[in-house]
Amino acid sequence: MTGEPLILVHAGAGAFSAHLQSQEGAVRDVLTDLLARAASELERGGDAASVVVDAVATMESFELFNAGRGSALCADGSVAMSAAVMRGSDRAAGAVAGIRTLEHPILAARLLLDGEPVLMLGDEAERWAAERGAGRQAPEFFITERQRSRLPGAGTAAGRADHGTVGAVCLDGHGTLAAATSTGGIMGQLPGRVGDSPLIGAGTWADAHAAISCTGDGEAFIRSGVARHIAALREAGVELAEAASRALGEVERLAGVGGLIAVDAGGVTTMPFTTAAMPRGLARAGQEPEVWIGPA
Amino acid sequence: MTGEPLILVHAGAGAFSAHLQSQEGAVRDVLTDLLARAASELERGGDAASVVVDAVATMESFELFNAGRGSALCADGSVAMSAAVMRGSDRAAGAVAGIRTLEHPILAARLLLDGEPVLMLGDEAERWAAERGAGRQAPEFFITERQRSRLPGAGTAAGRADHGTVGAVCLDGHGTLAAATSTGGIMGQLPGRVGDSPLIGAGTWADAHAAISCTGDGEAFIRSGVARHIAALREAGVELAEAASRALGEVERLAGVGGLIAVDAGGVTTMPFTTAAMPRGLARAGQEPEVWIGPA
Repeated sequence: MTGEPLILVHAGAGAFSAHLQSQEGAVRDVLTDLLARAASELERGGDAASVVVDAVATMESFELFNAGRGSALCADGSVAMSAAVMRGSDRAAGAVAGIRTLEHPILAARLLLDGEPVLMLGDEAERWAAERGAGRQAPEFFITERQRSRLPGAGTAAGRADHGTVGAVCLDGHGTLAAATSTGGIMGQLPGRVGDSPLIGAGTWADAHAAISCTGDGEAFIRSGVARHIAALREAGVELAEAASRALGEVERLAGVGGLIAVDAGGVTTMPFTTAAMPRGLARAGQEPEVWIGPA
Repeated sequence: MTGEPLILVHAGAGAFSAHLQSQEGAVRDVLTDLLARAASELERGGDAASVVVDAVATMESFELFNAGRGSALCADGSVAMSAAVMRGSDRAAGAVAGIRTLEHPILAARLLLDGEPVLMLGDEAERWAAERGAGRQAPEFFITERQRSRLPGAGTAAGRADHGTVGAVCLDGHGTLAAATSTGGIMGQLPGRVGDSPLIGAGTWADAHAAISCTGDGEAFIRSGVARHIAALREAGVELAEAASRALGEVERLAGVGGLIAVDAGGVTTMPFTTAAMPRGLARAGQEPEVWIGPA
């Protein structure tokens, strides 16, 4: 049975940091606004893949979040962004990693959704996407004063705990599921590192059974195969919240923390996290959005 | 119950091409030799991760295979290689993608196995691995006359059907599973493309339940989340061959072909493929290797 159309978004699992506390109002406003727009779009018959891409692209625009402009910096002070989108009805997927100049990495992933390859890297992904209309910016565009000031604290518990990856999952009125995720990675990461966000099956997944977008310690999420695992469990009849709980349990056994948002084909949702906070929200077509920062 | 130590290898699912027919003896010899060495190593108590890495590194050395020297060429005539390794006991994983100068991409993946990150890309992965002793070669080293002559045929059915990715899975005497995969990608691929081989959970996976290495149409394998799915099914009690068959069925529904090798914690093996041929072999500790090219 197909559920009513809805969208979930997250803005990264992490500490309830002083920064997040000071920005909580702004985060709530951004998420509420974009959820309201998404709900209207769903009411008008919008498709899940477009809705999640629009939501993620909006979050990429705000330097509040660790995606697009405002991304975390690599150890060498550069920005390297990744993004992925997947549509459950036909399992179309698109992803990019190692992106330094595309204003909206998720829009490059979207360009890959309806063809091959699924995944493209670096300069070549940037050129390919730019030739198809993706907007570029100088690398400095993405580097904000706040992130530059945080770089010396990278590698500390506080540095690692402040994630801010963004993502969205959606069930549309046609019964199609979709998921999208975008990130700047981890503050102070080794240049060349890629986490789970752009990896289909690790940080991002959608099929006929569930759509999932993850955030947290990327290596533990990759090594747990979190998103694909949740969908496989759901397909096998496990309730969505139980499936998500088991997958996050595997992440914890690898000493990883984080969170995820997920929706299944019946419109059941779950938004668990093992950190102090995960800004997140839910909107159903034709209803007011709800937004949370810490535990619900 | 833990099974007896064993290793499986593959050298890519694809057509039973004129080239493969002409090289069949050489392929059999290489696989037989490396399987015999691996079986001896397992008999001496060798660990699964080392055994699969050694087997894949050996195949990378032969231009018979589409990995390391002899890799397929991108549309621009360049080589871009990827590799991954995962150990089931602690789910350690290492992977590299977009590699142009590392003689053995699988050894760079191995360097990442016991730390973070899991996945590194391109130039930065090459520099990082070279600083830790990985051997480099000029990009031309990897480009063979045979592959150069094939590039004009890229994109044809014959071009696509000739894969040649290599992989290995192993159960060692300590009960640990491991998987490794290495590839040059698809002949004529878009520069910047990455397939399923280096993606943990897509083309390569090992946990306490199963180890899997895939070969074939990379995009369909990514969109099916093949390796993680098989392990999840096995964990849920599905027999290994049935789990692999279901996962390859999903690939087929996405119009993809290919194959895989898998072993579970009980030492049960499966080596299905949906192409005309997949050079592959099996060796148990202390026994003679067996090698097959077409259907068994």
